[in-house]
Amino acid sequence: MKKKCVVLLSGGLDSSTCLAVAKAAGFDCYTLSIDYGQRHLAELNASAKIAESLTDNQHQVVHIDLNSIGGSALTDKNIEVPDHDDIEDEIPITYVPARNTIFLSTALAYAEVVDADAIYIGVTAVDYSGYPDCRPEYIEAFETMANLATKAGVEGQKLKIITPLIDLSKAQIIQLGDSHGFDYGQTVSCYNANAEGEACGVCDSCYHRKKGFSEAGITDPTRYIN
Amino acid sequence: MKKKCVVLLSGGLDSSTCLAVAKAAGFDCYTLSIDYGQRHLAELNASAKIAESLTDNQHQVVHIDLNSIGGSALTDKNIEVPDHDDIEDEIPITYVPARNTIFLSTALAYAEVVDADAIYIGVTAVDYSGYPDCRPEYIEAFETMANLATKAGVEGQKLKIITPLIDLSKAQIIQLGDSHGFDYGQTVSCYNANAEGEACGVCDSCYHRKKGFSEAGITDPTRYIN
Repeated sequence: MKKKCVVLLSGGLDSSTCLAVAKAAGFDCYTLSIDYGQRHLAELNASAKIAESLTDNQHQVVHIDLNSIGGSALTDKNIEVPDHDDIEDEIPITYVPARNTIFLSTALAYAEVVDADAIYIGVTAVDYSGYPDCRPEYIEAFETMANLATKAGVEGQKLKIITPLIDLSKAQIIQLGDSHGFDYGQTVSCYNANAEGEACGVCDSCYHRKKGFSEAGITDPTRYIN
Repeated sequence: MKKKCVVLLSGGLDSSTCLAVAKAAGFDCYTLSIDYGQRHLAELNASAKIAESLTDNQHQVVHIDLNSIGGSALTDKNIEVPDHDDIEDEIPITYVPARNTIFLSTALAYAEVVDADAIYIGVTAVDYSGYPDCRPEYIEAFETMANLATKAGVEGQKLKIITPLIDLSKAQIIQLGDSHGFDYGQTVSCYNANAEGEACGVCDSCYHRKKGFSEAGITDPTRYIN
């Protein structure tokens, strides 16, 4: 029987590459999107399509209304998403409080339910834009905690948190996905993407995406407005 | 200026005692309930009232629809909640996958937003009914992870996870709350409580509550149907 994994899938470039890598590694993949009231709903629509094309299991979406506690331009409608050129601080305003911790915790719950051996998450410490919860030491600490938290862990079944992109640049991530034949035309990264999945071309996420395709020497299939 | 803390408040006996303890310790308390599709909505109503009577800050509720991923009698409507007498396994069916991890992660996000120094959670390893995420080693691992996950942690502000009930029996918890003048008549523990907050008297939670008041030598103010 195939080993099972949960893949956190946002519909963006990184998490979609993660799914392609998990599938190539022989895992039976259970995809999970977290809808935490973010503005880029286009990503969630993309994730459902990507999951359908790469897995046999039903894609799951868990809604978490982080809006009620606020604190980020991505979830708080009173804060403007800044353009890449306006970002100066080490930890940007687009940081969502405890985002990866909430994502991984929800994935942990799902991993218990489907009896998965691993959770894939597409964090990267290279182009990480100053998010503390993208560092290897954070991921290791989460894995340790996760194995103390669950029935499976108590019974000796070790759960792995797998981060195949953690040492890769955006360009290397794109090359990795491309090597598995993944079509990036399905993915949406833009913080301001419209309902049709078109990207603004000026936000921090678009900046890193454009730069990544350029450095990878791969044609960028993204539909940019700017 | 008072130190701030986030208190995870379900409206049950344990978490309400925790709030009374945090307040007595001099913290400015920010209460947080997680509505994860559980059946005991009566607890959530109770928590709002308890928060209002003990704190000056607005009580927050974060909705997380764990129903979509299933796996527990408390969130999956297709699984019956068993009576106390029917429970045999070490880890009961009322176990919610990764529950405390999801609760603490959400509290961690809120702690970042309000700049809190601590999170209070009313876990207890004594009457813990076999939940792995109520053990001290789990809590310590979460604290380590949390301090690697956040801006505050990266900048050297250490967040504490405080578990004042962890070594206490149900009777000792009741005595502790009573010593702070807390009125347990406001709290709801029952897994099957009705909209009026009346308890079934036969579920595992009612069993431990009745036993606790009896052993504490304190009159049980709960309105039991059975």
